[in-house]
Amino acid sequence: MQPHVIAGIKLGSASAGIRQTERDDLVVVELASGTTTAVVLTRNAFQAAPIKITRQHLSESPRYLVINSGNANAGTGEQGLKNALQICQSVAQHTNSTAHQVLPFSTGVIGEQLPVKLIEQVIPHALQNLTEDGWSQAASAIMTTDTRSKIATTSFIIGEKQCYVTGISKGSGMIHPNMATMLAFVATDASVSQTILQTCLNEVIPDTFNSITVDGDTSTNDACVLMATGKAEEADIQPGNPAYHALVSAVKTVCSSLAEQIVRDGEGATKFIRIQVENAQDRAEAELVGKTIAGSPLVKTAFFASDPNWGRILAAIGRAPVENLDVKRISLWLNDVNLLLNGNPAETYREEEGQQAMSASDITVRVSLGRGSASATILSCDLSYDYVRINAEYRT
Amino acid sequence: MQPHVIAGIKLGSASAGIRQTERDDLVVVELASGTTTAVVLTRNAFQAAPIKITRQHLSESPRYLVINSGNANAGTGEQGLKNALQICQSVAQHTNSTAHQVLPFSTGVIGEQLPVKLIEQVIPHALQNLTEDGWSQAASAIMTTDTRSKIATTSFIIGEKQCYVTGISKGSGMIHPNMATMLAFVATDASVSQTILQTCLNEVIPDTFNSITVDGDTSTNDACVLMATGKAEEADIQPGNPAYHALVSAVKTVCSSLAEQIVRDGEGATKFIRIQVENAQDRAEAELVGKTIAGSPLVKTAFFASDPNWGRILAAIGRAPVENLDVKRISLWLNDVNLLLNGNPAETYREEEGQQAMSASDITVRVSLGRGSASATILSCDLSYDYVRINAEYRT
Repeated sequence: MQPHVIAGIKLGSASAGIRQTERDDLVVVELASGTTTAVVLTRNAFQAAPIKITRQHLSESPRYLVINSGNANAGTGEQGLKNALQICQSVAQHTNSTAHQVLPFSTGVIGEQLPVKLIEQVIPHALQNLTEDGWSQAASAIMTTDTRSKIATTSFIIGEKQCYVTGISKGSGMIHPNMATMLAFVATDASVSQTILQTCLNEVIPDTFNSITVDGDTSTNDACVLMATGKAEEADIQPGNPAYHALVSAVKTVCSSLAEQIVRDGEGATKFIRIQVENAQDRAEAELVGKTIAGSPLVKTAFFASDPNWGRILAAIGRAPVENLDVKRISLWLNDVNLLLNGNPAETYREEEGQQAMSASDITVRVSLGRGSASATILSCDLSYDYVRINAEYRT
Repeated sequence: MQPHVIAGIKLGSASAGIRQTERDDLVVVELASGTTTAVVLTRNAFQAAPIKITRQHLSESPRYLVINSGNANAGTGEQGLKNALQICQSVAQHTNSTAHQVLPFSTGVIGEQLPVKLIEQVIPHALQNLTEDGWSQAASAIMTTDTRSKIATTSFIIGEKQCYVTGISKGSGMIHPNMATMLAFVATDASVSQTILQTCLNEVIPDTFNSITVDGDTSTNDACVLMATGKAEEADIQPGNPAYHALVSAVKTVCSSLAEQIVRDGEGATKFIRIQVENAQDRAEAELVGKTIAGSPLVKTAFFASDPNWGRILAAIGRAPVENLDVKRISLWLNDVNLLLNGNPAETYREEEGQQAMSASDITVRVSLGRGSASATILSCDLSYDYVRINAEYRT
């Protein structure tokens, strides 16, 4: 896909040789003066050094992002903080900005110190490569165990002005975002105040990056950044006005696509599972049930085996941390095939139909809790031999 | 191991051909008149039919247990309840007891109706085989994906009287007991009132069956039964007296052993992991941290790979649902090797030592949270190719 360029955003990639010598692993993103930035970061108590530095630097208006793959700079103590700051200073030196205007992001191995010198050496190359057309190259450079780069792009109209949203993300394992995701960088050329931009991002995250899981493991380095350059010079975006809704809708389109791409590229995944939980009392309990199903290794291996083993789905629903679940109101479908009706095996169910539904590479599990009108959709994948192989071979 | 017989408990096995024709899959246990019985059952909202019937029948003094493997009679609706009751009636007919004096237990495939006729045909055989020496044969008959039968036995002294505790259990997958376990049947010849016996079982469960996990999936059929026949005719057991403590200690010894045997026989397990969480504010948060580590697929695959990948352990601790974890107080050891000291990488750590610790088949992970004096130990295992193979091939 050829993504829309976003006026005011330039991206430059380079190869620092952090973990592999033959590929790009460093990205610098330049934000035009006046760009507003909203950020959502991991809730993992062990936050990586770059996450902590990013949090500190958010008080200034960021002008640069510096992102490396191959090393997460997590679990690295005081030295890790110094190293992350050193990278920011290095970018600042070459760009006539201050270290506080640079946000650092890292992804890769946990528990090893960042090879600062290797990165510093190639920062000038990355800066030389800055271009508005740099999205695709950057999407590749931030990959770790990902097998495919992840890009999404859309447009929206405010008044008579055409605006654009483009984003990239990475992520394949340690995917169970909590108020954030692996790395995602999304930009628009619309003019949006920082406050409204943050509101927009907070509104989009629950249904997109926070609704996916590969393996239930929340990363120490999750971060999602949304930038608005204002270059489109469109009409005013205010909370609740049509322009705001158009923006939210466009950002959601891009984030949904990026989130889905992460799950489809889940480590070892052979199947894409959409879990819709309906008729819950509130969204929170719908999410809990959805994530319990999505997180069950027994459900995941049944999907891998294309086995319509609905007993495992039922067992997962039953152990979800939701009070007073009444199983007599619970119904279950695999695509359009009804498995369970009000707690009893569906009389219409035929094993061949279940088998057929399970054989597809895209499967929808639909659960009705019969106790309210709230719902949630969780995206997940199966658990295959390759998940074990990848994680027995690769050091996070 | 030759288990101690328990005077007043007889066990008889038979082959009903529920799933495989060549092995025993039905067990009847006869409890002498006057035996007291304590039970802990699954908290899964989808409780199997035999669990519901057992709960109803507990108001009478049970005289028989009837246990089948190969079919869980779970997710089977009203018909499942009728079938479980029918099995109880069949045992009652042949034994001059009432259906209410029979407790049914099932384990195996979820979502298929129990083959009642096959089971009824062999109940007379199982009754003919009743013998105090039937423990080992019964332990084999209740197995599903287990590769080894699980028996534990011990003795204790009350006054001058020698008493015994013997138990069997089964379980290998769908192991994350919540207030119960897969199936476990434990008996003593001590004389214990029903109330005190239940108190004893409730005291033993948290540290034994509720402290293990193979895959985080709580079963619909979990049940642990503790029986006291009174045949030892020992001195009075009262809450808090030395005799009570001797009983609790002996029951705990047997249950601990059975629980550990379940984890060691975890589906596809190649390593046994003991996770000790110390210096927590209370036991609940120590358990939460321990179970989050134990449940992490990334931690489990690192153990399978013998990779001292402590970053994954750290990420799991960080995402545990515990409020206000201060990472600066957290320390981490692999056996005696210090990995993390007060939130920073331990300066003494050498990768070779971590590698050596990970290569063993028994590994202890020790975490200090530095915020109190409570602790908990969780037993778990690794995640291997074989876990995926077993669960892609076997229908729970």
